[in-house]
Amino acid sequence: MRFDELNWFDVESYLKDEDRLILVLGACEQHGYLSLLTDAHIPLALADAASQQTGVLVAPPLNFGSSPYFLAYPGTLSLRLSTLLDVVEDLVRSAYGYGFRRFLLLNGHGGNDPVRGRLYELANQLPDLKLAWYAWWTAHSVAEVAQKHSLKPAHASWLEVFPFTRVADLPPGEKIPPVVPGLMGAEQARQVYGDGVFGGPYEVDPEIMDEIFAAALKDILHLLAF
Amino acid sequence: MRFDELNWFDVESYLKDEDRLILVLGACEQHGYLSLLTDAHIPLALADAASQQTGVLVAPPLNFGSSPYFLAYPGTLSLRLSTLLDVVEDLVRSAYGYGFRRFLLLNGHGGNDPVRGRLYELANQLPDLKLAWYAWWTAHSVAEVAQKHSLKPAHASWLEVFPFTRVADLPPGEKIPPVVPGLMGAEQARQVYGDGVFGGPYEVDPEIMDEIFAAALKDILHLLAF
Amino acid sequence: MRFDELNWFDVESYLKDEDRLILVLGACEQHGYLSLLTDAHIPLALADAASQQTGVLVAPPLNFGSSPYFLAYPGTLSLRLSTLLDVVEDLVRSAYGYGFRRFLLLNGHGGNDPVRGRLYELANQLPDLKLAWYAWWTAHSVAEVAQKHSLKPAHASWLEVFPFTRVADLPPGEKIPPVVPGLMGAEQARQVYGDGVFGGPYEVDPEIMDEIFAAALKDILHLLAF
Amino acid sequence: MRFDELNWFDVESYLKDEDRLILVLGACEQHGYLSLLTDAHIPLALADAASQQTGVLVAPPLNFGSSPYFLAYPGTLSLRLSTLLDVVEDLVRSAYGYGFRRFLLLNGHGGNDPVRGRLYELANQLPDLKLAWYAWWTAHSVAEVAQKHSLKPAHASWLEVFPFTRVADLPPGEKIPPVVPGLMGAEQARQVYGDGVFGGPYEVDPEIMDEIFAAALKDILHLLAF
Amino acid sequence: MRFDELNWFDVESYLKDEDRLILVLGACEQHGYLSLLTDAHIPLALADAASQQTGVLVAPPLNFGSSPYFLAYPGTLSLRLSTLLDVVEDLVRSAYGYGFRRFLLLNGHGGNDPVRGRLYELANQLPDLKLAWYAWWTAHSVAEVAQKHSLKPAHASWLEVFPFTRVADLPPGEKIPPVVPGLMGAEQARQVYGDGVFGGPYEVDPEIMDEIFAAALKDILHLLAF
Amino acid sequence: MRFDELNWFDVESYLKDEDRLILVLGACEQHGYLSLLTDAHIPLALADAASQQTGVLVAPPLNFGSSPYFLAYPGTLSLRLSTLLDVVEDLVRSAYGYGFRRFLLLNGHGGNDPVRGRLYELANQLPDLKLAWYAWWTAHSVAEVAQKHSLKPAHASWLEVFPFTRVADLPPGEKIPPVVPGLMGAEQARQVYGDGVFGGPYEVDPEIMDEIFAAALKDILHLLAF
Repeated sequence: MRFDELNWFDVESYLKDEDRLILVLGACEQHGYLSLLTDAHIPLALADAASQQTGVLVAPPLNFGSSPYFLAYPGTLSLRLSTLLDVVEDLVRSAYGYGFRRFLLLNGHGGNDPVRGRLYELANQLPDLKLAWYAWWTAHSVAEVAQKHSLKPAHASWLEVFPFTRVADLPPGEKIPPVVPGLMGAEQARQVYGDGVFGGPYEVDPEIMDEIFAAALKDILHLLAF
Repeated sequence: MRFDELNWFDVESYLKDEDRLILVLGACEQHGYLSLLTDAHIPLALADAASQQTGVLVAPPLNFGSSPYFLAYPGTLSLRLSTLLDVVEDLVRSAYGYGFRRFLLLNGHGGNDPVRGRLYELANQLPDLKLAWYAWWTAHSVAEVAQKHSLKPAHASWLEVFPFTRVADLPPGEKIPPVVPGLMGAEQARQVYGDGVFGGPYEVDPEIMDEIFAAALKDILHLLAF
Repeated sequence: MRFDELNWFDVESYLKDEDRLILVLGACEQHGYLSLLTDAHIPLALADAASQQTGVLVAPPLNFGSSPYFLAYPGTLSLRLSTLLDVVEDLVRSAYGYGFRRFLLLNGHGGNDPVRGRLYELANQLPDLKLAWYAWWTAHSVAEVAQKHSLKPAHASWLEVFPFTRVADLPPGEKIPPVVPGLMGAEQARQVYGDGVFGGPYEVDPEIMDEIFAAALKDILHLLAF
Repeated sequence: MRFDELNWFDVESYLKDEDRLILVLGACEQHGYLSLLTDAHIPLALADAASQQTGVLVAPPLNFGSSPYFLAYPGTLSLRLSTLLDVVEDLVRSAYGYGFRRFLLLNGHGGNDPVRGRLYELANQLPDLKLAWYAWWTAHSVAEVAQKHSLKPAHASWLEVFPFTRVADLPPGEKIPPVVPGLMGAEQARQVYGDGVFGGPYEVDPEIMDEIFAAALKDILHLLAF
Repeated sequence: MRFDELNWFDVESYLKDEDRLILVLGACEQHGYLSLLTDAHIPLALADAASQQTGVLVAPPLNFGSSPYFLAYPGTLSLRLSTLLDVVEDLVRSAYGYGFRRFLLLNGHGGNDPVRGRLYELANQLPDLKLAWYAWWTAHSVAEVAQKHSLKPAHASWLEVFPFTRVADLPPGEKIPPVVPGLMGAEQARQVYGDGVFGGPYEVDPEIMDEIFAAALKDILHLLAF
Repeated sequence: MRFDELNWFDVESYLKDEDRLILVLGACEQHGYLSLLTDAHIPLALADAASQQTGVLVAPPLNFGSSPYFLAYPGTLSLRLSTLLDVVEDLVRSAYGYGFRRFLLLNGHGGNDPVRGRLYELANQLPDLKLAWYAWWTAHSVAEVAQKHSLKPAHASWLEVFPFTRVADLPPGEKIPPVVPGLMGAEQARQVYGDGVFGGPYEVDPEIMDEIFAAALKDILHLLAF
């Protein structure tokens, strides 16, 4: 269940014998031929699936992350890193205030990784707070599925093509990953990445995607038992 | 069209002969018997309707606002005011960077009003930036509809009962507005507001709601001609 | 009594059986033909009058507010919104620290309205803090006086012409309010507002001003009974 | 002339052949038997006197400074250091924006000294900005007057007893300066300083005070020729 | 050459035909039996070695990083994440100001990884800035050396035992890595990690350490050719 | 003993019957012909000497301070004032957290003086915290040595020429101190100061320097008895 479908009475009832919450951290940024919200939609879909099996509530997704390197691609909406850290702190503190204690952060975007640093600081300040972090595309389980099919994970490539991220036709074939010279500014990044895909096949058999999703979901269900 | 349904190529095309963007500012907070996301869903519905008629793009909604006074109601997720100001600045700067110039901010939540102060600061810094702000429930047009039906607008009351904000049955009859003693902290606010509704009928004839929606939409279409 | 006329022994004595304090929030900004400090002088005059009748102490006025939109008019000194919020927080925390508990904030300037958002945050953090906010020009009582005389309130117009804000002769007649196209930057605001007055008669019969002042003072005396 | 007595037209005229501004940095803090606003009133009196002789404008005083160590004395209103730095930056930037270039900062309070650090940063950012800083009680000229009369300068002692800072009778005789053990918190500071005076005679012959004032004024007139 | 051994004339000469600078990001935190400064000393040793071969200058090391999770171990001195980001920004901006353009950041500590997010933001703001980031213990080359000797990298284990980090005798044998339950606060981290070592052999043959060092140095020399 | 030579077990042992810590605040900035790290090396040498006699631990030096006025001299790395304040707060809070209570801050750089303002704020927040501040070049004892030899202290002059700060030959003779017109920006400062020395003899008899060092060390040993 998402907060959308609930009123405050519902959350109060829930907190009587539960204290787990799923927070979805997304991004609004170029994803090649895929939806600008790809990084929000994937963890949200995983959250919904996990919620359906466990009843754990899902907070509204944060639709924006830290994506400074993609700001030359129209449609990217990036929070400064300092802003992003504050947003996540505020969300955790709000929900902690009336009783949530165990937070699973489902992150959909690599640029949000620094949030973990702020979470450690919060863990020092809020007694009994329990935090778990999951970035699906970096999981061992997902890597194994990819490896099994001789595929490599990459931003905006086959790895992120789900029915709920596809908004246009995809090119045939695959892309040779560009050479990346250090930490690039946005203009240079656009020159280097061109269509925005980091390389590999543009899409693969949907059954592989089901395997990917199932692997990540299994991890999440395991993490929710904290 | 929402950013969800677009990739960056689409936004680049759009910017060739357009520079308008709708930003939706919401909140996740107690709304009595209504959805916690009421303040995001109403302006988003208005944005979608306006987009359908004009083709102006709709950025992903900010699902959180400044709601410190409701933090004793479970389900409220509030950004510190300073965080909220930074988020909106980051969104405007991101979109301005690749060519958006005219921004209509559709605000769904009274606590977000201070954002206007930061927008004035941005207007001093970004040449050719044009900003319009619309808070539907404070509009003259909406007040007129209410007055016509001898109704008073109030938080979480009949005024916000749309099909897309209703998540539970509503009590019959109406509520006498509580007496509010100054600027209250969250604990006191919960004691004063009880079920969270600020008073008046819990719901009214759906046709009145259609009138309300139509009045606000008309305003927005007018504002988009800036 | 203002803090100017007191030493710390006096405040310590006062706190033995009182815990109320009046904070005056002003601005230093263009006010057409009136003093740049108009928005500080009016609430300060009201505070002095209220203090004379109640004995409640008056803290030194904050002479600066948030006025980004008037920065193209020489003489405007504007705090960033974030700075303003921090200043007010610091003042409240300082006085709370040694025993003040009830604060009446007399605001003289519309751009300072976002301060209320920070005050709600403080109310969540400081036990037993009581806060009241009064913006005289938005009060019902003042609106009634205006209406009685068929006048409309407007920045730098007749509404703010008191003996203590007048620093030059005023033009005869009245000004047609300019059309305001959304949230303007400072350069555009100067073009639109010209002499800086928002419209209406440049001045009215002093007796009306006495009525306005008396109405606001009555409100304040009522609010001080919190 | 102070901004109080001017409207924006006056400042615009002034800027046609002038670009100097005096900023007064004060404090609201315990000053023993003297006014809580002593540190604002002294530099403001100096500013007024200098303005009278030179015509240089005087901005509204900042009535608050950084006084964390006196927060256990009722009546002290202290800005966090970070807040104070931001306030001064905002004032300088505002006035720089429409043409002021030479700023004389008349500081009345030792705790405000860190402002100089921020001013150096501003001097790197704003072309043609000229800044001068004067803290009257640390001036060589004032020290010479004190020495001539075998007096030592000290907070809240004879040194600050002017007609415009006196709000109560002063004790006879003089106070032995207390021993100060390092950087003290507010509670300890109150224990150490007792009545809040740092030591020496509680007052001296008014003619000495005239000498002090004249010495500082002479310095300021010299500094204004920058 | 380190800045320690140079004066400003030397740096000015250097900049005539060079614009590369090595920044060393360290930490002061528990490292089991090793020096609290281990994470500063290792990248500094690498920087010195690289400097000797290339002549590229080495800025003074930042001796502190983000280590909130180790704050229950005496000797850990941790910067808030926000502080750390600001420090690195200030260093880069300072050196950029007088002509450095290519910066190699040699990071010695995992908790500093979020700095990369801020660097991307800087890359958008400072034209011609080139940034490279190297975290030696995550390098493929180092992993290969470890794998060759059937070793696993881990905090404070054999991997960090260099002559310049050893300050005490090391225990014999190896430690079984503890199970880590999510993102832990400092108290819990100390309970879980005990002596502070993350597991594996406490030390290995010094020749392996030479291989490790050589592999990292080779990477760095390669990166310096940017 | 410096933290470099210790592991966390050592600090834990130390804290069983000690709670004093020396923090060294330095700078990386132009020092004429002397090392860029002069302001870090001098207080560090004093700290080492004091530590040898008392056993009090020495935290790793902060190699950077606030030096905005020297940013036109290559090699200067300056923290914004706000950053510097946060760094020092973080260091004190970290060490306070596991038991340090008495902190002696050995400052080597005038631009760091505003740190004292933040320390006062910390003293209000952390019970039983004791803070002492020592800026060797401003000490009475050092002034006496200088006076005895008819010398005047000045930045980058003879006063700072120790074996551990000398990195190049010094010019013969002495420099006439330049005239300083107020608070200067970096470009102007470089024009005014030329080689960066503030005036006086470039060096003096090493025995005088030993006297200087001994005088400062004696002060520090005295301060450590707090």
